[in-house]
Amino acid sequence: MAGNSFGHLFRFTTWGESHGPEIGVVIDGVPPRLPLSEADVQAWMDRRKPGQSRFTTQRREPDEVKIVSGVFEGVTTGTPLAMIVENTDQRSRDYGDIMDKWRPGHADFTYDAKYGVRDYRGGGRSSARETAMRVAAGAVARKVLGDGVTIRGAVVQIGPYKVDRGRWDWTEVEKNPFWSPDAQMAGEWEGFLDGVRKQGSSAGAVIEIVASGVPIGLGSPVYDKLDSDLAKAMMSINAVKGVEIGDGFTLAAEPGETAADEMRVEGDTPVFLSNHNGGVLGGISTGQDVVARFAVKPTSSIMHERQTVDRQGQETTVQVKGRHDPCVGIRAVPVGEAMMACVLADHLLRHKAQCG
Amino acid sequence: MAGNSFGHLFRFTTWGESHGPEIGVVIDGVPPRLPLSEADVQAWMDRRKPGQSRFTTQRREPDEVKIVSGVFEGVTTGTPLAMIVENTDQRSRDYGDIMDKWRPGHADFTYDAKYGVRDYRGGGRSSARETAMRVAAGAVARKVLGDGVTIRGAVVQIGPYKVDRGRWDWTEVEKNPFWSPDAQMAGEWEGFLDGVRKQGSSAGAVIEIVASGVPIGLGSPVYDKLDSDLAKAMMSINAVKGVEIGDGFTLAAEPGETAADEMRVEGDTPVFLSNHNGGVLGGISTGQDVVARFAVKPTSSIMHERQTVDRQGQETTVQVKGRHDPCVGIRAVPVGEAMMACVLADHLLRHKAQCG
Amino acid sequence: MAGNSFGHLFRFTTWGESHGPEIGVVIDGVPPRLPLSEADVQAWMDRRKPGQSRFTTQRREPDEVKIVSGVFEGVTTGTPLAMIVENTDQRSRDYGDIMDKWRPGHADFTYDAKYGVRDYRGGGRSSARETAMRVAAGAVARKVLGDGVTIRGAVVQIGPYKVDRGRWDWTEVEKNPFWSPDAQMAGEWEGFLDGVRKQGSSAGAVIEIVASGVPIGLGSPVYDKLDSDLAKAMMSINAVKGVEIGDGFTLAAEPGETAADEMRVEGDTPVFLSNHNGGVLGGISTGQDVVARFAVKPTSSIMHERQTVDRQGQETTVQVKGRHDPCVGIRAVPVGEAMMACVLADHLLRHKAQCG
Amino acid sequence: MAGNSFGHLFRFTTWGESHGPEIGVVIDGVPPRLPLSEADVQAWMDRRKPGQSRFTTQRREPDEVKIVSGVFEGVTTGTPLAMIVENTDQRSRDYGDIMDKWRPGHADFTYDAKYGVRDYRGGGRSSARETAMRVAAGAVARKVLGDGVTIRGAVVQIGPYKVDRGRWDWTEVEKNPFWSPDAQMAGEWEGFLDGVRKQGSSAGAVIEIVASGVPIGLGSPVYDKLDSDLAKAMMSINAVKGVEIGDGFTLAAEPGETAADEMRVEGDTPVFLSNHNGGVLGGISTGQDVVARFAVKPTSSIMHERQTVDRQGQETTVQVKGRHDPCVGIRAVPVGEAMMACVLADHLLRHKAQCG
Repeated sequence: MAGNSFGHLFRFTTWGESHGPEIGVVIDGVPPRLPLSEADVQAWMDRRKPGQSRFTTQRREPDEVKIVSGVFEGVTTGTPLAMIVENTDQRSRDYGDIMDKWRPGHADFTYDAKYGVRDYRGGGRSSARETAMRVAAGAVARKVLGDGVTIRGAVVQIGPYKVDRGRWDWTEVEKNPFWSPDAQMAGEWEGFLDGVRKQGSSAGAVIEIVASGVPIGLGSPVYDKLDSDLAKAMMSINAVKGVEIGDGFTLAAEPGETAADEMRVEGDTPVFLSNHNGGVLGGISTGQDVVARFAVKPTSSIMHERQTVDRQGQETTVQVKGRHDPCVGIRAVPVGEAMMACVLADHLLRHKAQCG
Repeated sequence: MAGNSFGHLFRFTTWGESHGPEIGVVIDGVPPRLPLSEADVQAWMDRRKPGQSRFTTQRREPDEVKIVSGVFEGVTTGTPLAMIVENTDQRSRDYGDIMDKWRPGHADFTYDAKYGVRDYRGGGRSSARETAMRVAAGAVARKVLGDGVTIRGAVVQIGPYKVDRGRWDWTEVEKNPFWSPDAQMAGEWEGFLDGVRKQGSSAGAVIEIVASGVPIGLGSPVYDKLDSDLAKAMMSINAVKGVEIGDGFTLAAEPGETAADEMRVEGDTPVFLSNHNGGVLGGISTGQDVVARFAVKPTSSIMHERQTVDRQGQETTVQVKGRHDPCVGIRAVPVGEAMMACVLADHLLRHKAQCG
Repeated sequence: MAGNSFGHLFRFTTWGESHGPEIGVVIDGVPPRLPLSEADVQAWMDRRKPGQSRFTTQRREPDEVKIVSGVFEGVTTGTPLAMIVENTDQRSRDYGDIMDKWRPGHADFTYDAKYGVRDYRGGGRSSARETAMRVAAGAVARKVLGDGVTIRGAVVQIGPYKVDRGRWDWTEVEKNPFWSPDAQMAGEWEGFLDGVRKQGSSAGAVIEIVASGVPIGLGSPVYDKLDSDLAKAMMSINAVKGVEIGDGFTLAAEPGETAADEMRVEGDTPVFLSNHNGGVLGGISTGQDVVARFAVKPTSSIMHERQTVDRQGQETTVQVKGRHDPCVGIRAVPVGEAMMACVLADHLLRHKAQCG
Repeated sequence: MAGNSFGHLFRFTTWGESHGPEIGVVIDGVPPRLPLSEADVQAWMDRRKPGQSRFTTQRREPDEVKIVSGVFEGVTTGTPLAMIVENTDQRSRDYGDIMDKWRPGHADFTYDAKYGVRDYRGGGRSSARETAMRVAAGAVARKVLGDGVTIRGAVVQIGPYKVDRGRWDWTEVEKNPFWSPDAQMAGEWEGFLDGVRKQGSSAGAVIEIVASGVPIGLGSPVYDKLDSDLAKAMMSINAVKGVEIGDGFTLAAEPGETAADEMRVEGDTPVFLSNHNGGVLGGISTGQDVVARFAVKPTSSIMHERQTVDRQGQETTVQVKGRHDPCVGIRAVPVGEAMMACVLADHLLRHKAQCG
């Protein structure tokens, strides 16, 4: 209820602050007898790990995941699957400035207003560090979904620059530090972001997550539509300000002829002739690719002096120092993939329960 | 879990199909001793009522709400508040066509695939008729929020035509059949939609909901962010394909300087100099206007012949007849307002519980 | 959260007060394509109906159930299954006395203290009338469980008089007005209760519910043990003050040799040589009969003058008039059966989701 | 949903197996700014710690609790409060016997049937070791309740021997190894249990938990009655087979005159003249002592050879060795207190949300 859990049947809860001793996650509802090792999870953790290029935060953590409950002799037991990551890079430093001042764009003011107390070290619970445990949960969710479901993410826009969908190539995504499916645009982003970094500024991004092989029938018709839950999942990622499914906002400008995907038969199977609806109709998956897109605002911490107020209610300015991604959106790709996996795994179990 | 409930502490559940005897809602968690009458609820119902202009469905229902539980001697009792609306306009007709054929853009195919059975009359549970009970729940949510909170909605785009924000005037919204805050654009939409209707086509829309007077501190920092829950709420409305908070997707193209709203002090109170974040930081309300926007795709039922498949797996075509809104988005305004009210009321009670 | 719902995957919510226009229930999560008619439900409602003998309340209501959502062409649709019963016997009368005075043993004082408002007519929401909708939900739960599961209830004690288990005969239960499995004891109870009634007093009872054919594996090991959920279910019935599983409290006095049911093999199947644990081990069903027992306190409304306090805080006395069961426990049998069915149906779906 | 969480607004989730690296708990919903240290929690942990007398298990663990999230500078932050205890005494040994054989009275058979896999070492997740984390959660719940609420537990029966309530003295409870409020009975139990232990047998117990100072108004009228939730809480403790509130099962034999507690006024306050209902009326607390009692069956692991079946479906016998409490009920006292604290804390927050 206080909002640190996600999902219903595949339900995970995270804990831990940026500068506490550890961060962790416990997943309840994992089906038994799924083969699972720490290496399986670590592989996904490593994709999100900070410090991999000059375009992501310079904080360096091994982010070594340990499974402390719920796996026995190489398989899941059906009991709570708990995993932890120790915080090793908590370098001591002077927090004087951000301890008292509300950084613009951050949760500092709202935390203080809500709780009357705040772990100011590295953003505490609001740190993007929390998302490491989402990736760990996502690794388990992928096991629940099985090999038939593939979930991939890509950055489709950084700052004002969008990829050219005609050049989309999934194999490119792993080859550049931006998860760009458009090799040419990756080069342009490099120049753009170098400039942004030198100016001490930051840039936003749009991320697209695509799930293929999703069974027909996941989701439900009213409040827990598959796309409602995806919207919640993606919007819950730090700094996200917008979510779309399929063609999203552009559909508002299209006529009904375009928006309603027509159907034909291929072999014995009904198929759709297009996927403007992003694989979801009436809240339920159609069997097509499920496509979600989300906008990440530019990193709030920039190197310039900004006007703000301190905890004593005095006007002041703040200039943030320390390790920050010029574009936090880049690192959101594995997190978006993980949230997609978790939503699908949850709805898979829910579908099995009612209609299986 | 099957997804017909929304909210946690202010939690409502709806039932009823388009052509069943009644639709209804039960709200659990309503605080006791709030003055509430059927007239209070009816006032909001009437704003959503169909048949009010040639731009919305011609189905004519009085949509008269009855409170059947939870109010005693003019006040809420704290026990479940149940309300029903009888379906009076269930004119008998020939369903032959849509009974067997999956209408493009509708939930027909996914329903059949998920449940193996479907109430095909008027879309059954997927009908926009369900949203009447959201409006009823929203009327009660407004009582929970009290007079200090004002929730208003407007249409900001129909088809490709957007309002001019320089001409925004809330008083205009109630004066035209499109909830347009821009009187001039209302006139243009009229012409555009007349054309759309004559062509037997349909148009999409973008709706903006603004809540003023929202207390600081609503929402929580991780999964149940205020904006995550708003994203889910808005995306759960029929035909919605995208949701944004504050400046939304446009923030992806902006630099950090713009996106992070600066603060000053006004009187004794910290204030923000802008509201690019739509009244939410780190998932928690800032006290500014909470701004959510959502895209509604064009009505899927159009007058043209479309390619589809029938329940027997044969290729066929379908041409929908009957009462349909050329732009369903217009009628989504009161529904979006209601969902905003319900999300805020739920988080208000959650905040009281933990931090009150 | 305000506690008018029960279950997770088979989840029902009730509404309605004793003297409001109707009472109702909505069940979310019902699997699709189960054959279901109003007559199926009515059959169970009729077993609970008041006014069937001089030992139960003289309130006479047809309690005719109507299905208003979730069934189409004779089968469940998977969407919310809503049922209502109109309150027809709301005879006008003088509530002056109980309107202002807190009746001993009733919820009057605690309601006023909690909510500051109370529908005093017939106990409002606290009336045993609410249990009619539990029986309706239970009828649907039985459909979910299928014909392999049989749920039966019996009264095993009224006042201080217990049945002789050596004379237990399930066929007797339907033949006497006390649901007694011991024909001889039924006769003795008749005399005892006639005396109680003439004295204007009341008597308590113990009810036993037995479910046969329950699949192995329902329940979970820690908080949502099958027996934890049964304990909650039974304790939630009006006037219940104790719940046991299997041998219950008597096990506390037994040695470990007795309490731990031994196992052998019969055919190819592991079997238990006894069932002291009531069909549940470690929170999970064993495949044996699931046995729950609960104590119902004597009806609080008696014909004698009792000391109490009024809403103005003044000492006073109260003497209850009107229709009351001398032993409310008797009518709790169908309610206990219904709650057993609902708990099992919920856990069946939960088991399918995780381990199916 | 898989049942490893308890509560709604004060909601905790536990993980960890008896012989895994650690056990842990995460509590979501803790109000901010409550002073809390590891020592506060450790004090309650120490009361439950094994190896304190020859009547409880000889497993020796320091059970040192570490807070790894949710406390900053000595106060709770409102974010998830996570605590862990390392398992230090996992002595290597031969599990051959219990690895393959289903121990009578244990969850071995049902686990294998449900999950198809089982951590057989020390009972895995079904070990009473899990209850250590309930005690940790209970320590935090007491902070939420504040100093005005006192929760105390006592053993009132071991085997067939019950305490004399006329000799009840709370100060005695801490002075004997049985939590007996009756010093004389403590002596008799000592002799009885020495005999039980020598015979390689075991004994059951009945525990009583009393909460004083509970505010009026906690709980709700229908499914989430305060006593329903207590019943679930207590029944979820290992080996519990029965729960009563107030006079419980004995009320079934009493007349209505006794069962319905009368009221008078004391000073300006309405008071009850007796507490047969155990501090709860209509599911809501009355302000009197809340009294819950539960029966713990005798330890299932005894030193005698028992008939059973192995995983291969063959008949066999099993004779359990190793560290076991002759009467597990004794160590359930701090666990019962903790569960009482957690139920009350949850309902306190729920009450604040709706009616505060």
